[in-house]
Amino acid sequence: MSKLRFRISISLDGFVAGPNQSLQEPLGVGGEQLHEWVFPLEAWRRPHGLEGGVVNESTAVMEEELANIGATIMGRNMFGGGPGPWNNTEPWNGWWGSNPPFHHPVFVLTHYPRDPLIMESGTSFTFVTDGIESALDQARRAALGKDVALAGGAKAAQQYLQAGLVDEMQLHLAPILLGGGERLFDGVNSLDSLALVKTVAASNVTHLKFVRK
Amino acid sequence: MSKLRFRISISLDGFVAGPNQSLQEPLGVGGEQLHEWVFPLEAWRRPHGLEGGVVNESTAVMEEELANIGATIMGRNMFGGGPGPWNNTEPWNGWWGSNPPFHHPVFVLTHYPRDPLIMESGTSFTFVTDGIESALDQARRAALGKDVALAGGAKAAQQYLQAGLVDEMQLHLAPILLGGGERLFDGVNSLDSLALVKTVAASNVTHLKFVRK
Repeated sequence: MSKLRFRISISLDGFVAGPNQSLQEPLGVGGEQLHEWVFPLEAWRRPHGLEGGVVNESTAVMEEELANIGATIMGRNMFGGGPGPWNNTEPWNGWWGSNPPFHHPVFVLTHYPRDPLIMESGTSFTFVTDGIESALDQARRAALGKDVALAGGAKAAQQYLQAGLVDEMQLHLAPILLGGGERLFDGVNSLDSLALVKTVAASNVTHLKFVRK
Repeated sequence: MSKLRFRISISLDGFVAGPNQSLQEPLGVGGEQLHEWVFPLEAWRRPHGLEGGVVNESTAVMEEELANIGATIMGRNMFGGGPGPWNNTEPWNGWWGSNPPFHHPVFVLTHYPRDPLIMESGTSFTFVTDGIESALDQARRAALGKDVALAGGAKAAQQYLQAGLVDEMQLHLAPILLGGGERLFDGVNSLDSLALVKTVAASNVTHLKFVRK
């Protein structure tokens, strides 16, 4: 069975985005600090078409994270373009340009219908309006036997966690405070179905891997 | 210079006590889960007068935490006895019985004056009403060259963190959610003066050590 594998970077105070998210600061004020551990990594830069980079304790974690993923699910806010109905005259096609780094089908949770977007090099965006279970079903079929990544953000993750649908959770804990923004675990009552199985310490991040008990 | 060393157990969602703290559940609902990693440890049981226990990855962390501490600071809520003026007819003398496990002077932050309490085997409780800096000054003098432990709870920690007075912070991150209660970092804007220097992974807790930059 294809697994649903959730991964996200989180601050010590529990935020996955800072306060006052905007088009200029999609991760909110200070939110980019959540990802400072990843940008220098060779294992992240290569699949994003960038040269160089470092190899460190996070390398194996990143390689594992990217391996055997056949589809991705994300929330509308992570795809971007602001809330509400889609703007058809100046359509928002995501943050990632014409060749997004997914290279597989991506399913975007939204309340507003929209035709699928076919991008370059294997990435497509399908907009799912009938809920998280439908998105997971569609993503599993599209993944052709591989696993499904749940990329975030907070609200999408909360729904899947609360429904007990997450098979694996990889938290990248950044040793910073954001002081406000989107809290990952708001409304999630417990992690009873998930157990911590692996902790990897790097100098600027701690990776905590949970799997279904 | 004697250091102020803060240590506390915290949930993945950032709480250091669960919701609905009471005399029956001083750590709030579910709060005892924060400390499940520590009770089985031989390195914790021995100084608490208990026999047996396990040795694991947390042992060295606990030994380091207990070493070279000459005084402790804690908030009123951690000392217990409920909020408001002290009850002189049925005085609350802490959670720990007549021989508390500190064996050094303890300074309790409170708004309500009270005479010092002298307990067995070296523990005393001094009630400090003139603020965190006064408590730290008194604790440093009492520590006779050793370091001062800041034991919590959340509000005491927030004040010392916000004032930049913490020299070392050891977080014991329990892989659980509490869903409510006392958030450690509420009102703390940043950890700019502290850097993550060591991460120790155990099966049921992750120890994150920060020191002043």
